Amino acid sequence: MASSAVANGGAKGPSPGRVAAVYSEVQTSRLKHPLPLPSVLRGAFKIVDGPPSSAAGNPDEIAKLFPNLYGQPSASLVPTGAVPSEIAGSALKIGVVLSGGQAPGGHNVISGIFDYLQEMAKGSVLYGFKGGPAGIMRCKYVELTTDFIYPYRNQGGFDMICSGRDKIETPEQFKQAEETVSKLDLDGLVVIGGDDSNTNACLLAENFRAKSMKTRVIGCPKTIDGDLKSKEVPTSFGFDTACKIYSEMIGNVMTDARSTGKYYHFVRLMGRAASHITLECALQTHPNITLIGEEVAAKKQTLKEVTDYITDIICKRAELGYNYGVILIPEGLIDFIPEVQQLIAELNEILAHDVVDEEGVWKKKLREQSRFLFEFLPQAIQEQLLLERDPHGNVQVAKIETEKMLISMVETELEKRRSEGKYAGHFRGQSHFFGYEGRCGLPTNFDASYCYALGYAAGALLHSGKTGLISSVGNLCAPVEEWTVGGTALTALMDVERRHGKFKPVIKKAMVELEGAPFIKFASMRDEWAIKNRYISPGPIQFHGPGANDVNHTLLLELGAQA
Amino acid sequence: MASSAVANGGAKGPSPGRVAAVYSEVQTSRLKHPLPLPSVLRGAFKIVDGPPSSAAGNPDEIAKLFPNLYGQPSASLVPTGAVPSEIAGSALKIGVVLSGGQAPGGHNVISGIFDYLQEMAKGSVLYGFKGGPAGIMRCKYVELTTDFIYPYRNQGGFDMICSGRDKIETPEQFKQAEETVSKLDLDGLVVIGGDDSNTNACLLAENFRAKSMKTRVIGCPKTIDGDLKSKEVPTSFGFDTACKIYSEMIGNVMTDARSTGKYYHFVRLMGRAASHITLECALQTHPNITLIGEEVAAKKQTLKEVTDYITDIICKRAELGYNYGVILIPEGLIDFIPEVQQLIAELNEILAHDVVDEEGVWKKKLREQSRFLFEFLPQAIQEQLLLERDPHGNVQVAKIETEKMLISMVETELEKRRSEGKYAGHFRGQSHFFGYEGRCGLPTNFDASYCYALGYAAGALLHSGKTGLISSVGNLCAPVEEWTVGGTALTALMDVERRHGKFKPVIKKAMVELEGAPFIKFASMRDEWAIKNRYISPGPIQFHGPGANDVNHTLLLELGAQA
Repeated sequence: MASSAVANGGAKGPSPGRVAAVYSEVQTSRLKHPLPLPSVLRGAFKIVDGPPSSAAGNPDEIAKLFPNLYGQPSASLVPTGAVPSEIAGSALKIGVVLSGGQAPGGHNVISGIFDYLQEMAKGSVLYGFKGGPAGIMRCKYVELTTDFIYPYRNQGGFDMICSGRDKIETPEQFKQAEETVSKLDLDGLVVIGGDDSNTNACLLAENFRAKSMKTRVIGCPKTIDGDLKSKEVPTSFGFDTACKIYSEMIGNVMTDARSTGKYYHFVRLMGRAASHITLECALQTHPNITLIGEEVAAKKQTLKEVTDYITDIICKRAELGYNYGVILIPEGLIDFIPEVQQLIAELNEILAHDVVDEEGVWKKKLREQSRFLFEFLPQAIQEQLLLERDPHGNVQVAKIETEKMLISMVETELEKRRSEGKYAGHFRGQSHFFGYEGRCGLPTNFDASYCYALGYAAGALLHSGKTGLISSVGNLCAPVEEWTVGGTALTALMDVERRHGKFKPVIKKAMVELEGAPFIKFASMRDEWAIKNRYISPGPIQFHGPGANDVNHTLLLELGAQA
Repeated sequence: MASSAVANGGAKGPSPGRVAAVYSEVQTSRLKHPLPLPSVLRGAFKIVDGPPSSAAGNPDEIAKLFPNLYGQPSASLVPTGAVPSEIAGSALKIGVVLSGGQAPGGHNVISGIFDYLQEMAKGSVLYGFKGGPAGIMRCKYVELTTDFIYPYRNQGGFDMICSGRDKIETPEQFKQAEETVSKLDLDGLVVIGGDDSNTNACLLAENFRAKSMKTRVIGCPKTIDGDLKSKEVPTSFGFDTACKIYSEMIGNVMTDARSTGKYYHFVRLMGRAASHITLECALQTHPNITLIGEEVAAKKQTLKEVTDYITDIICKRAELGYNYGVILIPEGLIDFIPEVQQLIAELNEILAHDVVDEEGVWKKKLREQSRFLFEFLPQAIQEQLLLERDPHGNVQVAKIETEKMLISMVETELEKRRSEGKYAGHFRGQSHFFGYEGRCGLPTNFDASYCYALGYAAGALLHSGKTGLISSVGNLCAPVEEWTVGGTALTALMDVERRHGKFKPVIKKAMVELEGAPFIKFASMRDEWAIKNRYISPGPIQFHGPGANDVNHTLLLELGAQA
């Protein structure tokens, strides 16, 4: 049979999830998967500081916001050639927290920290804060031991200590955090999270330093969306696994489309702020049509133009005898369309103050362009915009099923063209949303190794007294032994945004760059993919044998372009 | 990079799909995957007939409908111990057709037929009819050669020759089929399909025999739904792969549910007529709640009772601190609920003749029980029932998103209980439909081997002069070498149904048996799964290493129970 019990041995705290969990054969085999380390982490190393850093934007404001941290150098780990030895008498107390949405590999970051402490700082203690940053504020934690961690090695999910979306923001909350780290006598805290969480990590580091507290803070780049990256942080963990899971499914519906010859599969993919996932999946699978939000925004396209773009290709394909296809749509598409944003802003205003009469007199309050757009929308979407509002009365953009909206608009446009004698094919749209199933898959070998190195490096950075850095592992297209390891000043990734009249520090989300190698590669191929069927089916993620150690395409292309 | 071009060499006909296709690394590696054969097929064998057969029901009527075939014995292949040698001068002309929806492994059935002919009947020709049974009627075919077939070995989909849902039914259509097999001088035809297609195959076999035509017909059991099976046909191909793909996704959302602690994932699974897929996925993953259509029907449950069953468990879990979970729902659930069928019948009647007034006076025409049910349904579903009708004006049951309907009804019931002080948790439903992504995945090692053996056996049965049999490979839980091979009389699987006053032969769909080992196993575990979290994450299908050769649970349990 394919399952076996995993004992949770002498774990000191109760695991929220996997106490005496039953594992599949693949899960069990992953427990024993050996994790390679970059060679610099396998021998003795020293930390070498780089030049003083600046900021991604508005350095003067960042300097004011982070007076204790601004300008600090990034750090590189450099092998000394000596035999590694633990630093005598340097046992540490470290806390770790998972922040925000899940990404495959989070458990391996924790394993990496733990193993570093076990191997290089004997006698250390690692606490896991439960349920995200709220666990820090409420001092809810569990001591992580060998037995506790074991069942989570190379496993998906964040359920070892769970995550949460709270932020440590108010003075009161900072005070709670201070109390917790003091009570636990923490030398360090590792924050595993996305752009917001790493900004928060840097604010904590600044705060602890300002108060001359000993607790240091190191961040780790996590998000399946792939929008937390920079020159020093080539990718966020989880992106590789999630994209491969989605690409497996996309490849399957491509084969389905070609086999039946009668469906257009409209696939919406997770990733609201940036379209990296959609671009990566396109590079992996070669769909007929791919919408990239950043391009739609840059070209200031209207919804009608997006619809026409899709419809034009469907018509061309019908002429060639193909009445099927696959279309990738980023979850955040409509957030990138200026006129939709304008319409929603006007609707929010109207809905807040006016009655929506059945005769539609209220529509006169819309600006002309917005009224046209509203009338252009399928009726189901119109109703959704008017009826489904959040507790503040605002339109719930996130609830709009963009893929169904596009199917409906394309249907209408095709019927128009049919009546004009410009289209004689047949069209059946089939909608899909691939999202939640990608956030918690078993991490690929790449994500498993990458996360382990990130965690191990975070341990080393804390051990050497660093704070306010994000764990940075580079040269990721080379074999693991050749990966570089270091820490990047979080302030160097920051810019400011003005909110409520005040400057707030932010790590800007990395958007798809239209001048970047991945987009250029995609743009050079898409016309061929549109008309010819160049589908690729990546198949299920493999842990052994061919394909088991592939790195994602965008990373290969980005790093290749930089070289 | 992870892709490579696959040459299509000297293929004689154009492939609808994969001419010069670009393949992923995993796809390419699957091309070279060696296919083991049952040992009886590797040596010389003879065909041994069993006793005369009967029918699954109404043998007298079946005998009348199949005067030339009824009662014929099933056949077993038995090793002779001699060295295999091709039968001199026995080159065959064989046609093959894919019928109905896709199932992973169809290409390997064709590869198996082809390889049998190559190895045991040199000089044979294999034609592939294009686009399903319509290809037979219109005589659209392609000659299948070594080069043509190569790129499809162990690949998912049906795109080698594509499939279709047409049936050969009318006298005119039978005549077209006769003309095609005569024109191509076919010795045999292999029909790869589900229950309907195999019934059709038997009618063709009877017809050809009745007209003293030489063309013999052999069926192969295909459907991801798993509802074509009998004692001699332990499973249909594709079921294993599809269930493993769905179970991978279910395992992932389970980990997601446990990690966030705030979602109830309602997962609808493909399989309208029977709930085998849902049951298999439940056995693989241990969800908190699983609905099995056959049980709902047997207990004559109402929609309210189904809703209460779910809600009760959600409330119990909330008391234990679990505000999350995973719920599996078979696609055909509402077809199993008698009162829903009654409501839909009444609605079809009313919608055909009456005006649906906004005030709801029309509702008085519903019987009391149906009116209660209608009022119980969420508004969105009410609207869907009234508005979305098929070209005949009938309610489109298949379009109802059962998982969203249940979320809405559970929400309402939970709010009621909250107001009564009986529930204090928080509930967020997240809907999923896993369907199309499972029909065309790369076949598992099991399906790859099973299909190859089915095809190879079909070749052997035709070669030995058999007709009206379904290729049957048994002992499937043993290693491939020990699998048994034979053919089962299609008439033995049949019963009759009265349609328009006439008896029609049908292979009855195999439903989930509530007395069968898989359901009993599930039923013995579900109360524990409901309250405790026994989630298993099967992970992605592996082609190498641990888990690569697992057989599905229902098959193991059914065969184990028989032994």
